[in-house]
Amino acid sequence: MPHIQLPEGLPGIVGPMVAYPETEKHLNGLADALLRGPSSLTPGEREMIAAYVSACNECNFCTQLHASTARHLLGTASGMVDQVLLKGAQAPVSEKLQALLEIAAKVRVDGRRVTAEDVARARQAGADDKAIHDTVLIAAAFSMYTRYVDGLATWAPNEPAAYDEMGAVIAENGYSRTIHG
Amino acid sequence: MPHIQLPEGLPGIVGPMVAYPETEKHLNGLADALLRGPSSLTPGEREMIAAYVSACNECNFCTQLHASTARHLLGTASGMVDQVLLKGAQAPVSEKLQALLEIAAKVRVDGRRVTAEDVARARQAGADDKAIHDTVLIAAAFSMYTRYVDGLATWAPNEPAAYDEMGAVIAENGYSRTIHG
Repeated sequence: MPHIQLPEGLPGIVGPMVAYPETEKHLNGLADALLRGPSSLTPGEREMIAAYVSACNECNFCTQLHASTARHLLGTASGMVDQVLLKGAQAPVSEKLQALLEIAAKVRVDGRRVTAEDVARARQAGADDKAIHDTVLIAAAFSMYTRYVDGLATWAPNEPAAYDEMGAVIAENGYSRTIHG
Repeated sequence: MPHIQLPEGLPGIVGPMVAYPETEKHLNGLADALLRGPSSLTPGEREMIAAYVSACNECNFCTQLHASTARHLLGTASGMVDQVLLKGAQAPVSEKLQALLEIAAKVRVDGRRVTAEDVARARQAGADDKAIHDTVLIAAAFSMYTRYVDGLATWAPNEPAAYDEMGAVIAENGYSRTIHG
């Protein structure tokens, strides 16, 4: 049972977002800007970083939802998602993405862990300032979303089909147009 | 030196906010809604929870800035701020605030640590759903802001006077009107 009264039947972050629209607006606005706005990383790559950070935080709702969204965005390359969830920076993805996953994993624990060498490695593999910025902020933001979902003890479905459906809609329409208070 | 190119001389989160206005808008919008919008907690109380979470995360910029803002908002009660930074839920503040600081400290580490008993204790001391919601989201959001500041290795001033000045302006005008891209 959630720690506060939430509309019934709404999964994960959707309950508190619908109940508290003043903050929902900015939480979804941030997700759209960060995961869908202009960047040298594709939306699929950014959703994959978000899913990976959520998995490390052991937030089931966020992991399943963003993994599903990444799969829908990546299309034929969607097999990468499970590899990243399983192996993180050791997954068989591009060197650039490996270096960025390493940075994300460090920011998730403590931002101060990121070293100049980590950043140099990402740059050598082709990451620009925006990719590094976005990776740091995605890892930081999913340190927030997962705590919001879990700190209120929100309800989440178990069936993969539920996440597949939500992920398809979010891949198509983004966050603010899909969820609102 | 910051990990990415940022405008010089701007402290802490202000550098990446000015450099990346698409996300700045929502990061500041969230801070204004969460720390200044309608709530059963005063803005001073909410800033104090934010400063406490930042102190536990050892983010110097966020701790000093939000402690200063809390002091300006609390006026004659500003002595509470140092007590809370030092002693957290054991500080000599109201039972309600003690219970909420305990919840915030748990969310900071992992949202799943919050128990039904923690929430019942806060309710018995007078916290309503909105106060519990806001506490969880403040602790979650400052798990993001501190990682954004530290993960990019932003520069921060050491002089207390710099934070006192910024805190005064933010106490007066809020976030979006003070910092923008």
